[in-house]
Amino acid sequence: MDSLRIRILTDGKNLGNGILKVDGFINHQVDPTLMNECGRELARRFGRAGATKVLTAEISGIAPAFCTALALGVPIVYARKQKPITMPDQIFLTLAPSHTKGREVELIVSPEYLGRDERVLIVDDFLASGQTILGLARLAKAAGATIVGIGAVIEKTFEGGREVLKPLGVPIEALALITDMSEGKIVLAE
Amino acid sequence: MDSLRIRILTDGKNLGNGILKVDGFINHQVDPTLMNECGRELARRFGRAGATKVLTAEISGIAPAFCTALALGVPIVYARKQKPITMPDQIFLTLAPSHTKGREVELIVSPEYLGRDERVLIVDDFLASGQTILGLARLAKAAGATIVGIGAVIEKTFEGGREVLKPLGVPIEALALITDMSEGKIVLAE
Repeated sequence: MDSLRIRILTDGKNLGNGILKVDGFINHQVDPTLMNECGRELARRFGRAGATKVLTAEISGIAPAFCTALALGVPIVYARKQKPITMPDQIFLTLAPSHTKGREVELIVSPEYLGRDERVLIVDDFLASGQTILGLARLAKAAGATIVGIGAVIEKTFEGGREVLKPLGVPIEALALITDMSEGKIVLAE
Repeated sequence: MDSLRIRILTDGKNLGNGILKVDGFINHQVDPTLMNECGRELARRFGRAGATKVLTAEISGIAPAFCTALALGVPIVYARKQKPITMPDQIFLTLAPSHTKGREVELIVSPEYLGRDERVLIVDDFLASGQTILGLARLAKAAGATIVGIGAVIEKTFEGGREVLKPLGVPIEALALITDMSEGKIVLAE
C-alpha cells in the first residue's frame, strides 16, 4: 500500500499526544479511490477467512469497512453509538474508552444483524490502543458469532493495541504501521 | 433502480409516524453491492453537473455519498455532528432539526475541505422534510461553494422536502419515491 503510505506522509499531521490527523483523506474528507484500494487490499489479505459479515464502529470505520465488504461481497454492520428509534429494545451493548473523545462511548448492535452463525471480520480505520476493536469483539462474542480476523487501515504500533487483541487468537492486519510519533515525527515501518 | 424498490418492499418496515426502517440494508447493516449500485446511478444522473466534491452528513449519509463520490472520482466530505479535536477552531456550523432524534443537531464542516471554488453535490440516504439537506446547503453557501445538485436514495414525497429545497434552484434526484406510508402501507411511485 505505497499509495496509503505516501498519503500519510504527505497529508497526515502529527498533532501531538499520539493524535494523527488524517481528516483530509480518511476521517472528515474521504478519498474514495484510496479507501476503495484499502478495502480491496484488506479483502485480499482475509480472502480465505470465509467472512460472512464485516463489523465496524461508526463513524470513521464506515468507509474502510464498507470498501472491504464491497470487495468481499458480504454485508457490513456498523455499531451505533446511540440507539436509534428503529432498533428493538433488546440489543448488544458494550462500553469502550475513546482516546480522542476522552470518555467511554457505547457500541450498540442489533441482534437482527449479528447472529451465532456469522463469521465476522472486524475492520476499523485505526488500530491504536485496541479498545474500540476489543469492544466490537465483545459484541460479536455476545452474539455467539465467530471472529475470523481484524483489519485496520493504520496501526499505531506504539500504543500496544496488537498485544491487547492477541488473546482473541485471530489474524491481525494493518495496511500502514506507524512506529513513532514522538517529537512531531511520523515514522512508518518498512 | 428496481433492485432498490424491491429491497424496500421486501426488507423495509413501516414503524408508523412516517418512520421507515431500512436498518437491514442502509442504516445499520449496509448491503454494499446495492449501495454501490445506488451511488453509480446518482453519479450517472449528475454526470454532467461537474461536481468537484460530494457533501453529506454523518452517519447514514456516508455510504451512499461515498459510493457516488467513488463513481464520480471526487472526494466526499461528511459533516460532523460533534467537533472532533482534530478540527481547527474556526468552522462552518449550522443547526438542523432531526425528525428521528426529536431535537436539533449540529452540522459541522472544516473550511479546510470546503472552499469557494468547489462545485458541491449534496447526497443523503433520505430526502424527507429536507431539513438536513437544507442545513448542508447552508454550509456549502457559507463556504462560498456552488451547489450543483441534490441526490437521495429514498424520498418520502409526503413530507414535502422537495418543496423546501426548490428555492435552491438545483436539480433534485431520488432513486425511490415513497408516496404514502399511512395505515402501515409502503407505497412506491411508478
